[in-house]
Amino acid sequence: MSQQKIVLTGDRPTGPLHIGHYVGSLANRLLLQQTYKQYVMIADVQALTDNVDNPKKVHENVTQVMLDYLAVGIDPTKTTIFIQSMIPEIADLTVYYLNLVTVNRLRRNPTVKTEIAQKGYGEHVTAGFLMYPVSQAADITVVRAQLVPVGEDQLPMIEQTNEIVRSFNRIYHTDALCEVEALVPKIARLPGTDGKSKMSKSLGNAIYLSDSADVVTKKIMGMYTDPNHLRATDPGKVEGNPVFEYLDAFDSDTKTVEELKQHYQRGGLGDVVVKKRLLEVLQSFLEPIRTRRAQLAHDIPSVMKLLKEGTEQTRIVAAHTMDRVKEAMHLNYF
Amino acid sequence: MSQQKIVLTGDRPTGPLHIGHYVGSLANRLLLQQTYKQYVMIADVQALTDNVDNPKKVHENVTQVMLDYLAVGIDPTKTTIFIQSMIPEIADLTVYYLNLVTVNRLRRNPTVKTEIAQKGYGEHVTAGFLMYPVSQAADITVVRAQLVPVGEDQLPMIEQTNEIVRSFNRIYHTDALCEVEALVPKIARLPGTDGKSKMSKSLGNAIYLSDSADVVTKKIMGMYTDPNHLRATDPGKVEGNPVFEYLDAFDSDTKTVEELKQHYQRGGLGDVVVKKRLLEVLQSFLEPIRTRRAQLAHDIPSVMKLLKEGTEQTRIVAAHTMDRVKEAMHLNYF
Repeated sequence: MSQQKIVLTGDRPTGPLHIGHYVGSLANRLLLQQTYKQYVMIADVQALTDNVDNPKKVHENVTQVMLDYLAVGIDPTKTTIFIQSMIPEIADLTVYYLNLVTVNRLRRNPTVKTEIAQKGYGEHVTAGFLMYPVSQAADITVVRAQLVPVGEDQLPMIEQTNEIVRSFNRIYHTDALCEVEALVPKIARLPGTDGKSKMSKSLGNAIYLSDSADVVTKKIMGMYTDPNHLRATDPGKVEGNPVFEYLDAFDSDTKTVEELKQHYQRGGLGDVVVKKRLLEVLQSFLEPIRTRRAQLAHDIPSVMKLLKEGTEQTRIVAAHTMDRVKEAMHLNYF
Repeated sequence: MSQQKIVLTGDRPTGPLHIGHYVGSLANRLLLQQTYKQYVMIADVQALTDNVDNPKKVHENVTQVMLDYLAVGIDPTKTTIFIQSMIPEIADLTVYYLNLVTVNRLRRNPTVKTEIAQKGYGEHVTAGFLMYPVSQAADITVVRAQLVPVGEDQLPMIEQTNEIVRSFNRIYHTDALCEVEALVPKIARLPGTDGKSKMSKSLGNAIYLSDSADVVTKKIMGMYTDPNHLRATDPGKVEGNPVFEYLDAFDSDTKTVEELKQHYQRGGLGDVVVKKRLLEVLQSFLEPIRTRRAQLAHDIPSVMKLLKEGTEQTRIVAAHTMDRVKEAMHLNYF
C-alpha cells in the first residue's frame, strides 16, 4: 500500500462545472493530485437527495462533470474518479452508521439546519436529506480518506464523520475506520457575473468551463460592475466588483491588475476596457480547456471507460474497508 | 420465472427460537412453503439496530436460528433462507427509499412509536431505529415479495412499504417495485410459562426448541397455573392458564383437552395431572425436532452451506430487482 495520504473530494452532478468550481476546488485538486492519493467522487446518490424527481438530469451530468474534470487536467493516472452509486459499500456503511447517530444529533447539525432552512423543507424534510451527513461519513471512510477539502461551512460534516468513526471503533474494538481532517482552502469564493456572492446554475450567473468563446464574451461584457460608475471618468469601486475579483483569480500579472484597480478607483478607466482585459485573460485560460473538452466529447466511450476503471479501483478499496468493518461487527459468516 | 406468489418472512437472530415462535410463525411457514415461493430472512442488520454493542450475540444466533429452521422442517429446497447483511442491495434500496419518506412520516408510524416508548429511547432514538420501516420496505421489495405474514401490530409497516412502492413507481415512471399484502395469521400468541402474555428470552419464560428433555420437564412442571387452584379438589380457571393454552396449541386430541378443561373447572383435577399430560404431548412434539437439531449441529459446515446457497439465490433475485430500480432511476452508466 502507498504511504501517500488519502484525500477525498467530489461534486454533485447537477450541472456542468463553472469557473467558480475551478477557483473553489478544481485548481486545488490539480495540486492535491501531485502530493496525495486523491479520490474524486461524482456524488450521484447525494444529488438525488434533492433531485428525486429529476434523475435524468443527474445521469446526464455525470458525463458532463467527468468531461470537465479531464479537460481541466484531473489526471486519471493520479486521481481515482468514481461514481458514488456504483459503490454499494457506501450504502452498506450508511445503514450501519445510522445506528450510531441519534435523530436529534442530526437535527442539530448546523450545516443541515441551514440547508433545510434555505431549501424551505421545514417539517417536510425527507429522511434521506436529514441523514446525508451519515452518508458523507460513509463516502469518506469507505476510501479511508485522511483529508477532505471543505469550506468553513462544511466543518460540522467532518465533525459528524469523526464522531461516527470514534463510536464505531470504540463499540467494535477496532481501528477499522480512520478519522479525517478538514483541509480548508484559503481561496475565496468566486461571485457570479451579476455580483451575487454565489455563482450557481440556478441563479443563471455562471460561466461554464464548457461555454463557447462567444457565450463567454457575451457573459463577460454583460457583467455587473460598480452601478455608480456611470461614465469612464467617474471614480469606480473595486470591492464587490466581480470583474476585478475575476481578474484577481485568473490574471497572473498581478502588477497590471493592481494598476488597473488604482486607475479605476481614481476615475478615467471605463468598464469596457477592464472587461476586455478580463475577457482576454479568461479566454486564454478557457481556450485549452474548451479544446480538450471538445476532443474528449468526441469519444465518450473512452471517457466513460476511464470512469469505469476509477470506479472499479474504488470498489477494491471499498471491499477491503467493508471486510474490516464486517469482521469488527462479526458479520462475517462464510 | 415461477408463477407462485412470493412470500417473505424472517426473524431477528437475537436468541434461539422457542415454542412461541413455532406457534406464532414457524408452523405457518411450514404451510406457506407448500404453496408459495418462500423467502426466510435472518435479519442480522435489523437485530443490530437494538444490539449495536453486542454483535457477537447476533452472529452466534444466526447459526442457532438456522438450526431451528431446519429442525422444524423448513425445507431449503422449497424455502430460500438468507442472511440480510449479505444482500448489499437491501442497503442500496434503503438509501434510495430514504429520499421518498419524510422524517415526520417515520415519527408517526404507530409501530415505531410504540417500540420507541417500550424501549424507553425517548429523544435518544437512533436514526437507524427510526428508519427501520424503510429498511423493511427494502427487505420486502428486494425479493419482490407479494405477501408478508405479520401480526396486527405490524400492519403500519406494510402500509409504509406500499407508500414507498407507490411513490417510487410514480416518480420514476416504472413498475419495478411490487406492492405487498399483509397475511395476518389467525393463530394466537402463546403466553410465557409464567402466564405473561409474551414468551420471550428476556422474560425468562420461554421453552426453546433446543431445550433438553430435562429442561422442558422442569419448565413445564414449574409452570404458572391458576393461583387460586390450591388443592386438586378446588375448581380451577382455564382462561389465562398457560398450561391449557399450550394444550390447545399442541394437543391434537381436542376432545380429551375439552374433558380436562371441564374437569379442571369443576374441581377434582390437580395441576400435576394436567402438566404431565402437557409434558407428554410437548415432549413427543419436541423430541424429533431436538433429535434432528442435534444431528444437524454435528455438521455445522453443511448447515452453513445451505445458508450460503440460499443467500446466493437471493442475491440473484436482488441483483435483478436492483437492475430494474437503477434503470428506472437512470443510475445505469456502463
